[in-house]
Amino acid sequence: MSREFFTTRTVAEALRDFAPSRRTGRETVALAEALRRVPAEPVTSPSALPGFARATVDGYAVRAADTYGASEGLPSYLDITGAVRMGAAPAVAVGPATAVLMPTGGVLPEGADAVVMVEYTSETMPGTVEVVRPVAPGDGLVRADEDVTAGAVLVPAGRPLRAQDLGMLAAAGVTSVPVHACPRVVILSTGDEVVAPETATLSPGQVRDATASALAGLVLEAGGSPVLSGIVADEPHALSAALRAAVADADLVVVSAGSSVGARDGTAEAVAGLGEPGIYCHGLAIKPGKPTLLAECGGVAVIGLPGNPLSALVVFRLVGMPLVRRGGGVAAAPVEPVVRARLSRALASAAGRLDIVQVTLSDGPDKPTATPLFGASALLSILTSADGYLVVPEEATGLDTDTEVDVTLYR
Amino acid sequence: MSREFFTTRTVAEALRDFAPSRRTGRETVALAEALRRVPAEPVTSPSALPGFARATVDGYAVRAADTYGASEGLPSYLDITGAVRMGAAPAVAVGPATAVLMPTGGVLPEGADAVVMVEYTSETMPGTVEVVRPVAPGDGLVRADEDVTAGAVLVPAGRPLRAQDLGMLAAAGVTSVPVHACPRVVILSTGDEVVAPETATLSPGQVRDATASALAGLVLEAGGSPVLSGIVADEPHALSAALRAAVADADLVVVSAGSSVGARDGTAEAVAGLGEPGIYCHGLAIKPGKPTLLAECGGVAVIGLPGNPLSALVVFRLVGMPLVRRGGGVAAAPVEPVVRARLSRALASAAGRLDIVQVTLSDGPDKPTATPLFGASALLSILTSADGYLVVPEEATGLDTDTEVDVTLYR
Repeated sequence: MSREFFTTRTVAEALRDFAPSRRTGRETVALAEALRRVPAEPVTSPSALPGFARATVDGYAVRAADTYGASEGLPSYLDITGAVRMGAAPAVAVGPATAVLMPTGGVLPEGADAVVMVEYTSETMPGTVEVVRPVAPGDGLVRADEDVTAGAVLVPAGRPLRAQDLGMLAAAGVTSVPVHACPRVVILSTGDEVVAPETATLSPGQVRDATASALAGLVLEAGGSPVLSGIVADEPHALSAALRAAVADADLVVVSAGSSVGARDGTAEAVAGLGEPGIYCHGLAIKPGKPTLLAECGGVAVIGLPGNPLSALVVFRLVGMPLVRRGGGVAAAPVEPVVRARLSRALASAAGRLDIVQVTLSDGPDKPTATPLFGASALLSILTSADGYLVVPEEATGLDTDTEVDVTLYR
Repeated sequence: MSREFFTTRTVAEALRDFAPSRRTGRETVALAEALRRVPAEPVTSPSALPGFARATVDGYAVRAADTYGASEGLPSYLDITGAVRMGAAPAVAVGPATAVLMPTGGVLPEGADAVVMVEYTSETMPGTVEVVRPVAPGDGLVRADEDVTAGAVLVPAGRPLRAQDLGMLAAAGVTSVPVHACPRVVILSTGDEVVAPETATLSPGQVRDATASALAGLVLEAGGSPVLSGIVADEPHALSAALRAAVADADLVVVSAGSSVGARDGTAEAVAGLGEPGIYCHGLAIKPGKPTLLAECGGVAVIGLPGNPLSALVVFRLVGMPLVRRGGGVAAAPVEPVVRARLSRALASAAGRLDIVQVTLSDGPDKPTATPLFGASALLSILTSADGYLVVPEEATGLDTDTEVDVTLYR
């Protein structure tokens, strides 16, 4: 396979067109394990909720018609015929000109159609309540199916479960949820100079594998399950064998390449023959991160990342995390915290290329000031000191000082 | 203890003044378990990074002075005296008028002060390289301590670890991190009508415990470790005993009250005598969520939440989650995704009270439209169908239609 066949794509093209078919299987998890998990199907309610007409105030269950025209000057007088106990069926019904004492959350007795708040009543004579404000039918209560009707969707498929969703499922008695399994993301590191983070003392020229640990973090944030497969030597057979094993084992494979020429080209060669349709692009119109490879091998996405950690992490955040989410059944991109800021200085950019610029934020006269962090793209410290990043769009040829920009914040 | 002694506070007061002293202990976690964990102290680098002057381009290590004035028309000619191998010490130094072949990431040989990109060279005669552009000292390389100096802070205390922080720690060979333990948050449910979510068939008036499961989700999101302690009967001795056990066992205690009068008042009585300084407030100027109790018992925060799930979750998000984070050593509030939107309708509000309004978002003419979701505050479906919420500030007496508002988005 010669280099001439390799194509460069824009990030937008890749996000739209590179769509490996692999989806994770489904599994069932208990509610306590379900936060941020992705329902594999809509979950519906076995019954209506709350399931009974329920008082939302402390007061008296009444027939609303019995209170029409009631005022401080001319109260309605109703006979108190009983009291509802929490968590129990009412022992009495409400008839004409009668009232039943109700706690918030109690079951509305038969015959009643409203609950008068205790604040608008007084029990001046034992056994009789004075009502000084009228209520309309439905006041002071929720209907038996007002929260959820039987069969209604409690949580949709494809949206990671939020805290309130867990509450809703619990309310409906749904204590386990069918979810997509977390995509298994195998991370291979390559590069003769790369050694494990545990290496206490480095020989000259060696660097510890920073990218794999950081990628594992991004995989977790995208709902995946990272598998660090260690460091593969810059040797074609070793990389081919490791990739073959990874593709057989994973929902998605990430190769964190060494920065040598051999490591850069090796991934492309090793991917060839691993499965159809093969390489989608070898080069993305993004800075940093151009030498990125995207391939699909028998449904499994293989992402070959640039050699330096900063570039690798920028590309994985923009292109890899969406693929992890999609593989795990997430239907829509999550919302990210974004702040509007003003650029502290002009930025040059080439048209047709997405530029990702790491920035710090500080107070500004009207909006925060975004100050770009520059330096060799090999410096991981740029990422750790950044508050967020901004994107110079593909069509822009640069941004002027004081331009308003959207900064996506690191959390 | 009579009700007259109970004080209502604003949310701002509570966030500022209610500061129970309990902090979690510290523990050490491996890098693979460290995402979102909170460093208990700044972690510094044992050595400089990358640790050696490193080429950032493929090319030739040279003395910059040897390239001054070089051009296409008048190249500099340098003798190639060797090649640097990845991950190994250079075998040769660079002397006057010589060059050494360099891979990206290779160790700069002694004597060299720059790397010329291969694109600006050609090896027209074997053993000699033509350089057609000058380089300045420092071009094409990073210094030995350019990413991190020895002893520099890799990650600060109190900021949850991000993916890039894990990479930086790995690069420095720091494979375990001293972190705050996750705050242990015991969640007690009360209410005679409340039954476990596992209850298949409800008796009349019973409701399943929705709040505890949702609270557990919010605790996890705040970095805490939720412990669901089950449902306590609406009976003073039972609640006192359960609370006493919880305070002894937890970093923070949450009581999800039943909605009956007894349950509402019971928490306050049960808290009395559990430890100094006791109750901070019994009532927050917030809607929904007014009947909230905050107490500190021997350093442990006790939060008594309103009876209905929606109110309880609104209050816990605004007041409880910050307490969980603080207990776990988080130094600053996390950034939340916020979108600027226009109100679809006017909202009434009482001055001096924070109103939290759940909204859905839809496309609008210039900005998204925020449509408030109304209904009884007992309806959990309002929370599950909301895209986010807006806050009507304490000083406002309402918001007009079309007012621009910030909507905090649920993720």
